[in-house]
Amino acid sequence: MAALNRQTNETIRVQRCHGKIAIEEAVDSPFFNALATDPPAPLIAKFEGAVPFSKDFLTHVQKRSSDIQLRLESMDQTGISYAVVSLTSPGIQGVADASKAIEWAKKTNDHVYDAYVKAYPDRFGFFACVPMQDPKAAAAELERAVTQLGAKGVLINGFSNINSNDMDEIQYLDHPGCEPFWEMLAKLDVPLYIHPRNPPVSQQRLYWDYPNLAQASYGFGVETAGHALRIMCSGILDRYPNVQIILGHCAEALPFLIHRIDHRMVIATQGSCGPHKQNMMYYLQNNFHATCAGVRRESTLRNTIEEMGEGKVMFSVDYPYESNEDAADWFDGLQMNENSRRAIASENAKRLLKIR
Amino acid sequence: MAALNRQTNETIRVQRCHGKIAIEEAVDSPFFNALATDPPAPLIAKFEGAVPFSKDFLTHVQKRSSDIQLRLESMDQTGISYAVVSLTSPGIQGVADASKAIEWAKKTNDHVYDAYVKAYPDRFGFFACVPMQDPKAAAAELERAVTQLGAKGVLINGFSNINSNDMDEIQYLDHPGCEPFWEMLAKLDVPLYIHPRNPPVSQQRLYWDYPNLAQASYGFGVETAGHALRIMCSGILDRYPNVQIILGHCAEALPFLIHRIDHRMVIATQGSCGPHKQNMMYYLQNNFHATCAGVRRESTLRNTIEEMGEGKVMFSVDYPYESNEDAADWFDGLQMNENSRRAIASENAKRLLKIR
Amino acid sequence: MAALNRQTNETIRVQRCHGKIAIEEAVDSPFFNALATDPPAPLIAKFEGAVPFSKDFLTHVQKRSSDIQLRLESMDQTGISYAVVSLTSPGIQGVADASKAIEWAKKTNDHVYDAYVKAYPDRFGFFACVPMQDPKAAAAELERAVTQLGAKGVLINGFSNINSNDMDEIQYLDHPGCEPFWEMLAKLDVPLYIHPRNPPVSQQRLYWDYPNLAQASYGFGVETAGHALRIMCSGILDRYPNVQIILGHCAEALPFLIHRIDHRMVIATQGSCGPHKQNMMYYLQNNFHATCAGVRRESTLRNTIEEMGEGKVMFSVDYPYESNEDAADWFDGLQMNENSRRAIASENAKRLLKIR
Amino acid sequence: MAALNRQTNETIRVQRCHGKIAIEEAVDSPFFNALATDPPAPLIAKFEGAVPFSKDFLTHVQKRSSDIQLRLESMDQTGISYAVVSLTSPGIQGVADASKAIEWAKKTNDHVYDAYVKAYPDRFGFFACVPMQDPKAAAAELERAVTQLGAKGVLINGFSNINSNDMDEIQYLDHPGCEPFWEMLAKLDVPLYIHPRNPPVSQQRLYWDYPNLAQASYGFGVETAGHALRIMCSGILDRYPNVQIILGHCAEALPFLIHRIDHRMVIATQGSCGPHKQNMMYYLQNNFHATCAGVRRESTLRNTIEEMGEGKVMFSVDYPYESNEDAADWFDGLQMNENSRRAIASENAKRLLKIR
Repeated sequence: MAALNRQTNETIRVQRCHGKIAIEEAVDSPFFNALATDPPAPLIAKFEGAVPFSKDFLTHVQKRSSDIQLRLESMDQTGISYAVVSLTSPGIQGVADASKAIEWAKKTNDHVYDAYVKAYPDRFGFFACVPMQDPKAAAAELERAVTQLGAKGVLINGFSNINSNDMDEIQYLDHPGCEPFWEMLAKLDVPLYIHPRNPPVSQQRLYWDYPNLAQASYGFGVETAGHALRIMCSGILDRYPNVQIILGHCAEALPFLIHRIDHRMVIATQGSCGPHKQNMMYYLQNNFHATCAGVRRESTLRNTIEEMGEGKVMFSVDYPYESNEDAADWFDGLQMNENSRRAIASENAKRLLKIR
Repeated sequence: MAALNRQTNETIRVQRCHGKIAIEEAVDSPFFNALATDPPAPLIAKFEGAVPFSKDFLTHVQKRSSDIQLRLESMDQTGISYAVVSLTSPGIQGVADASKAIEWAKKTNDHVYDAYVKAYPDRFGFFACVPMQDPKAAAAELERAVTQLGAKGVLINGFSNINSNDMDEIQYLDHPGCEPFWEMLAKLDVPLYIHPRNPPVSQQRLYWDYPNLAQASYGFGVETAGHALRIMCSGILDRYPNVQIILGHCAEALPFLIHRIDHRMVIATQGSCGPHKQNMMYYLQNNFHATCAGVRRESTLRNTIEEMGEGKVMFSVDYPYESNEDAADWFDGLQMNENSRRAIASENAKRLLKIR
Repeated sequence: MAALNRQTNETIRVQRCHGKIAIEEAVDSPFFNALATDPPAPLIAKFEGAVPFSKDFLTHVQKRSSDIQLRLESMDQTGISYAVVSLTSPGIQGVADASKAIEWAKKTNDHVYDAYVKAYPDRFGFFACVPMQDPKAAAAELERAVTQLGAKGVLINGFSNINSNDMDEIQYLDHPGCEPFWEMLAKLDVPLYIHPRNPPVSQQRLYWDYPNLAQASYGFGVETAGHALRIMCSGILDRYPNVQIILGHCAEALPFLIHRIDHRMVIATQGSCGPHKQNMMYYLQNNFHATCAGVRRESTLRNTIEEMGEGKVMFSVDYPYESNEDAADWFDGLQMNENSRRAIASENAKRLLKIR
Repeated sequence: MAALNRQTNETIRVQRCHGKIAIEEAVDSPFFNALATDPPAPLIAKFEGAVPFSKDFLTHVQKRSSDIQLRLESMDQTGISYAVVSLTSPGIQGVADASKAIEWAKKTNDHVYDAYVKAYPDRFGFFACVPMQDPKAAAAELERAVTQLGAKGVLINGFSNINSNDMDEIQYLDHPGCEPFWEMLAKLDVPLYIHPRNPPVSQQRLYWDYPNLAQASYGFGVETAGHALRIMCSGILDRYPNVQIILGHCAEALPFLIHRIDHRMVIATQGSCGPHKQNMMYYLQNNFHATCAGVRRESTLRNTIEEMGEGKVMFSVDYPYESNEDAADWFDGLQMNENSRRAIASENAKRLLKIR
């Protein structure tokens, strides 16, 4: 019956929310296997070098990571009008040789600009990749990408490998040597997306017997939240208070945890959690933004909004690792007021990334 | 003015909620330093063996961990009528020599029973400690503690050290050798509280430069949530479906994370996340309980209730590491309906622990 | 692709929750038009006696209100295993002549028992109707229905007409004359469902120009919440503290409003809000239950759970005015933990109504 | 102990949020008793003309409604930097004689401007009052107040009495005759605050036996929400889509109710709920704003934010009927992220009212 059917549509058939912007969207690079490290290293300890994902899934991902027409069709079908793409993880961060990292970052940025942004300026923007193995070169490449290629910011896949002979020698973004990068980031006033990568292989004891735990299901988030906490503790955000950092997966559980983290840091010995001047909650609310890439759970999203504010949370997908359809159907179907939905779907991203 | 003052009281002056039960309450042992490992090992890498907590705090904790009268007075003042006490972390889990662990666990249980439960049966119950270095002995001690001393269950401080010569040789509760323990736990039908301990020293790279991060502020939760996930993945809860496990700190962020964990495990290679038969959400909702020990944030508590159900969340303090006054003032002051408050304050614990 | 499709199912295709119980389910009576008053009175002022619902809707409702096989099929398809049915509104409350009301209530209860409960004992229970025009007779009929016919309680459609010559002469349940009814209700220890009816015609000025507002869309709730507040204010619940009252529509916005109602009553003149001994919040939490009949909005349901507790909220539909499919699809599709879902779907109703 | 005391402060001692803006703040008029109607009419049926509030409360309110220094001191102590004041209810709406209403509105606006805005331009703005008994005159006075006195908008206390001989002859804002007022409101692009007044005396049967229910505790909200629904139904907001309306008390429960209202209107007969073109939810989200004046309950505030969006909710007090201290202590003590707190405390009001 018509009247009742209208009701059914209301709740179950998803009303497509058009004009969404997605900003954690991975692309491949034609000239090096972005998924691997250089030199090759097993991603997961005790797992013989393979990623613990099904073959079907990987085949599917591979096809979708480089097929631009497929991506555009999928975006069209799911109400995503604009995507900010970036090189998939670990990307340049896994290239231990600094000179290679510098060269490949530059080539990747040029390629992504040409293939996506220049070809489809109304549909794509991009986050640059930078060779943090040489922070001065990273700063220079960031400047070039932003000022010459119009990059919307930079995406870094966690820590960087810095020694080709020892893939466990790594460097986080709070390392003092990274100062030139932060200085440039603050100067250009563009955001940094910190994307997950696997925890260092030697540190995976907790995940040893269940390799999948080290990955996207759990270890990714721990590694990335810890990285964000290191940056907060380090004092970088006191020196560069305008720096804006984006985290995926609803900010990697920091909204849930941050109050207790501050609460326990109150009793910390001087110096045991860095020279930071504000509490962690302050940084989370003033210097961080979250996307719901990879999250399709309402109470998780709600917790994130409640701790960061409606203006700091953005839709995203993590295509091709996630499906545009799944992400959009979930988000568009949320029983959420349309003012907040619009903010999260597009307005917050437009403001932060100066889109259009 | 009287009328308006009544309003003020309503919102700001806390209405004490009486009859609360607290179940993550640590006590010291007179015959070994429960806070240390045996043999001694630095708790935090690169921190010269010291815990990264202020001296004032530690002095204060030490006094409160063994002074029973002070504890009772504090409970009286904060509306906590009953506490289930347990040996502080890492306790027996840090005693690498199995025979010592067996002996000290037995002595500790006898001591805690005598000093707390026998002396103040209306005010104290206890969780037994067990020597997981020898799971059969752990099962026997658990049986003795429950059937002869009336233990309400068992509390284990994470992984166990199992080699006096290598403090990095550790064993999690999902190790196949632990089967006798799980069998006994299921048979006795008492809950297991998994309490945090520091991540293994060799695994602390993420926290290297900010030792406090490895502790209660962040690392504790990662280690404990990961341990819980290992148990879920292992299939133990399929073999012993009546096992009930309690986690502190609002279940260590699993409520926030669990949906995505399941979502990403769907694409896992066969075997890369263990032989479990249900999804992680199922175990969280059917085999786990959370306390809000150490959490004083409403949206964190709300997220936990939303993902686990009102019947699975319990008040707790973590005295003497936390203050009874802080925890009670926060909890009692929450703008929460009194039916839910009563469930969380005491009814859920009474039902689970068969109190009274 | 298989893996991704599994994800899609997770969020969009509704996983049917089986075993639901629905308790605001209307049935017609073969021997009088339950939807009308006796003598006939216009339901909505200035609307020429007609209800402001579309003809399609009314035809559809009429068919479904009396076709038991259709009802059972619909229940089967939507996971509703058991329904507590009751005479539709205004029913006996609209029969101003007390002797007629007494006779028709008795006949209706016998009919509903025979046609539903006796014929399908595993699928149907019922709430009795009672002639509040004569409270002693109402008490007697309630006793008969509960003890002889196994009624699960009683459902009353708001105020009662008590004068055939003046349909504006009405009586609310807090009228002193109703005492025999309350006494019996407390003695039998069964719940009272207060179901909406239109506000009295002479009181509809607010809705005058938009008759639909007087109905289910708004006026129903105002009238019923006000009725519940009258009962709270009257002191009845102090005299009969075990009385349990059920309200539909997520308790008619009382969860949203109750804190402010108490807050403003603090400054009330003695006697201006009745002789009640507790505050309104107390009664709402101790003497009231809510169903989500007619509500399909998550934040409304959440607010209700937050103010009344998970143990006081129950699924319902309001079939045939609402569609089983719409209600079930919405409820079953909520991203809610399964412990809470089970409580709201069936366990709370089983406990309150002593089902099975 | 210091460390622990710092924790206590965190949760219990309220951190004052400075710079708050309050916009439902009542002032008295020196030349007519703003609380009364003209001619005098009992506010509450069967209550002998008196308001059902305690004498203490009324004495207190009277003093505070006109003492500007007391008001400023109270604002200083509670972090309220700016208040938008307006004539208390029913004010001009209760003056049935149109010529008197016109004269008194003008005099009141001049007085409020002089005494508050001109004298303390950094602390006070004002909402004009207008004589809706003569909508053309109301439009003219609105224009004068906004363009010449800098009024931030207009506040109307519900329906207007329009017949000195019959205080039950009233007019709502959706009356066709009000068109000139709406036209001017849209032209000036300033918001309209619809403030509660008592339901018309002849319509108070529901509250008859408990006069306080007719007032702020319940009847106020019903009357005002119903008034807002009339405006939504009337089509005014289709003709003047830029009109912005503010409601107090968390939008008078409309956030809780609005989804069901729309849901039931779908089956309404053509014309039974007016010629509106959008659904009620659309208007609530696009043409309405809420203040939390008079509400001090977290889940009520949360429900309001969830249905209207963080950008549509504003702090307010309702001084002198509410206490600045109570309202500020509650709001400042909420465990809310500071981005959202700032939006609700001041930023939303600044944007809507073009303050500073």
